[in-house]
Amino acid sequence: MQTQWDSVYAARTERITSSAIRELLKVTEQPEFISFAGGLPAPEVFPVAEVGEAINRILEERGQQALQYGATEGYLPLREWVARYMSGQGVPTSVENVLITTGSQQAIDLLGKVLLNEGDPVVVESPTYLAALQAWNIYGARYLPVPTDEWGMRTGGLQQLLAKRPKLLYCLPNFQNPTGATLSLSRRRRLIEQAADQGLPILEDDPYRELRFLGKQLPRLISLESARLEQHTAPYQGNVIYASTFSKVLAPGLRVGSIVAAPSLINRLVQAKQSSDLHTPTLNQMLVYELARDGFLERHTRLIIDVYRKRRDSMLTALAEHFPAETRWTEPEGGMFVWVTLPAPFEAARLLATAIEEKVAFVPGAPFHPGGGGDNTLRLNFSNATAEAIYEGIARLGAAAHRLMDTAVTA
Amino acid sequence: MQTQWDSVYAARTERITSSAIRELLKVTEQPEFISFAGGLPAPEVFPVAEVGEAINRILEERGQQALQYGATEGYLPLREWVARYMSGQGVPTSVENVLITTGSQQAIDLLGKVLLNEGDPVVVESPTYLAALQAWNIYGARYLPVPTDEWGMRTGGLQQLLAKRPKLLYCLPNFQNPTGATLSLSRRRRLIEQAADQGLPILEDDPYRELRFLGKQLPRLISLESARLEQHTAPYQGNVIYASTFSKVLAPGLRVGSIVAAPSLINRLVQAKQSSDLHTPTLNQMLVYELARDGFLERHTRLIIDVYRKRRDSMLTALAEHFPAETRWTEPEGGMFVWVTLPAPFEAARLLATAIEEKVAFVPGAPFHPGGGGDNTLRLNFSNATAEAIYEGIARLGAAAHRLMDTAVTA
Repeated sequence: MQTQWDSVYAARTERITSSAIRELLKVTEQPEFISFAGGLPAPEVFPVAEVGEAINRILEERGQQALQYGATEGYLPLREWVARYMSGQGVPTSVENVLITTGSQQAIDLLGKVLLNEGDPVVVESPTYLAALQAWNIYGARYLPVPTDEWGMRTGGLQQLLAKRPKLLYCLPNFQNPTGATLSLSRRRRLIEQAADQGLPILEDDPYRELRFLGKQLPRLISLESARLEQHTAPYQGNVIYASTFSKVLAPGLRVGSIVAAPSLINRLVQAKQSSDLHTPTLNQMLVYELARDGFLERHTRLIIDVYRKRRDSMLTALAEHFPAETRWTEPEGGMFVWVTLPAPFEAARLLATAIEEKVAFVPGAPFHPGGGGDNTLRLNFSNATAEAIYEGIARLGAAAHRLMDTAVTA
Repeated sequence: MQTQWDSVYAARTERITSSAIRELLKVTEQPEFISFAGGLPAPEVFPVAEVGEAINRILEERGQQALQYGATEGYLPLREWVARYMSGQGVPTSVENVLITTGSQQAIDLLGKVLLNEGDPVVVESPTYLAALQAWNIYGARYLPVPTDEWGMRTGGLQQLLAKRPKLLYCLPNFQNPTGATLSLSRRRRLIEQAADQGLPILEDDPYRELRFLGKQLPRLISLESARLEQHTAPYQGNVIYASTFSKVLAPGLRVGSIVAAPSLINRLVQAKQSSDLHTPTLNQMLVYELARDGFLERHTRLIIDVYRKRRDSMLTALAEHFPAETRWTEPEGGMFVWVTLPAPFEAARLLATAIEEKVAFVPGAPFHPGGGGDNTLRLNFSNATAEAIYEGIARLGAAAHRLMDTAVTA
């Protein structure tokens, strides 16, 4: 008898459905396509030469260590670097606050493993990062969606949701995926006050923070929380769990991220990580440390910002020139995404069908909404094509939008 | 209010207890210690120069790809290599049978995520690999332990356990961790026949296979299953899930392993992996492929075997010369571990206390037994010290054992 695989899957994984985005990306890999669908950083700005030099240095000086098993917590000098960096940002952090993760997707997964039981409510922005929902679905999360606008999560109705005793609040405060919106300072303060009032853990997922083109950096939620607690010495003991990554400022293919959180939570996350993948690859961690410690990453980030700002500007210009007047979109101050809202009855899924004929692709916004809705929204990525290709692609997409809306009018 | 972390952890992670082994390893990191406690490969034989050359080649030729996000399934040429390799080993395998994992620990975790619900029974060898139990505890597994001897899992009572409708059977057929035992051919056949009879998924965890010093390779469970199904063309569609790793023949710090299984199961595992860490680091996969494709790994494995065999021989010689006559131990034909059984009332935990005074360390065997027992057993690793240090360490440990047993007699 052969295994009847369908009958043996865990109930929890019945909830894993094939991601529409993954399937879509496969179609649009053809070279003539201009794709706004993915979330890929620009490979042209990967510091390939510096990576090669750093690896050669590491292998020469500590080659055996770089290839050997390492501690689950992460490579100590990198953890120390993260602790120093965060301390410099106003969050007294010690090494026991820091866990190195295999990308920040793993931070999301480990949080689910450690905090979420079947049926546990999680407060999320709507729309929010799709792969977080997919990760937590496996652990049986229920979602309490909070509406968002151009200043991020609308904190007005939060108190009511908090009464439902959520186990976790999830927030992407800067240049959110998918909307590109940044949480305003007053909302940050309100969020911390209200959540803090009941000791609710907050996952502050902040992959795009360093990619700010315009405006001033706002304080992190973890900094506001740290100030509220008036703890002036490490280790940090607050409710906010800060997830960051080197994917956007260095290279996503290395899969190195970090979590900063209270030591007792870090201990649990370490145990969960140990049984997930033992540790994040040693060489990759040493490489990130080598490029972070002498300030190279900081200089390199300015180069990335220059490139991305031009691409964003090209996208916003093209949207204004080629999209139907009734369309709205965000004007992100950083990150990698613009969020478009079509006038009410028009569906992004139908636009996508037309767009694919024009050899241009994007991701419809509906799947990012845990509570449903958003049928008239779409996400556009601007980091992974030249400014010229972006202009051309948005012109094509605008033509497709005009076509869709004109057909509806004449029909 | 600060988060009361103890009150918010998921019920499932209450089961993650601090591993005695991890804590122990911290104590024994002092340089004067001779430690048989870990499971680290010999760093002296890591091919540091070849790794450096291969990385330079990859970065020069395909640097942007090496640093970019990749497919969750894994780097296609590496998946193809695994498929070709397994096909050459008598298992018709296509690329849709192959998932690249972040070390084979991730294979174990993903299997738990996809197959195990709260309370599901899993058949395991007793003793077995500790970190598999830790990974599956999180998903609520119950264990049905099968006793083992020097020829591996004793299949005599298996039929009775299978009547309890387990969801998975877990087996390390070659040079098992912790015992070093190899499953005999007749037991391999019986296992496949009996488990196959009810379509039970079998996880064949085979990290040490290539490290055989003596004797003949035995067919993999997946090969026997493939022959039983009489499927002569790929894709493989059987019940056995084959997990392998490049940790032992190349370098564990790279965290690259693979799963070969039926395509419908691979699809589920891909979805689970996507929400766990998106994909295994691209550069690491390209590096492994670069070193595997031209036969370097095969040549390199012979060097590792030469080194490990000497170390094993040194350990067995020292055990015979220095250990009390009533002690028994395995004589593994490969791998990294020897398993010692003290005469009945003597406890390995008490021996460890004495051993640490002698600056020598090992891991007590009890935690490897999911059903309890094994208090008089211990695991000795022989891959991570020179033959000389091993001889010296076993002499010290033998003295400690004599001391423990003499004290008991005079007490």
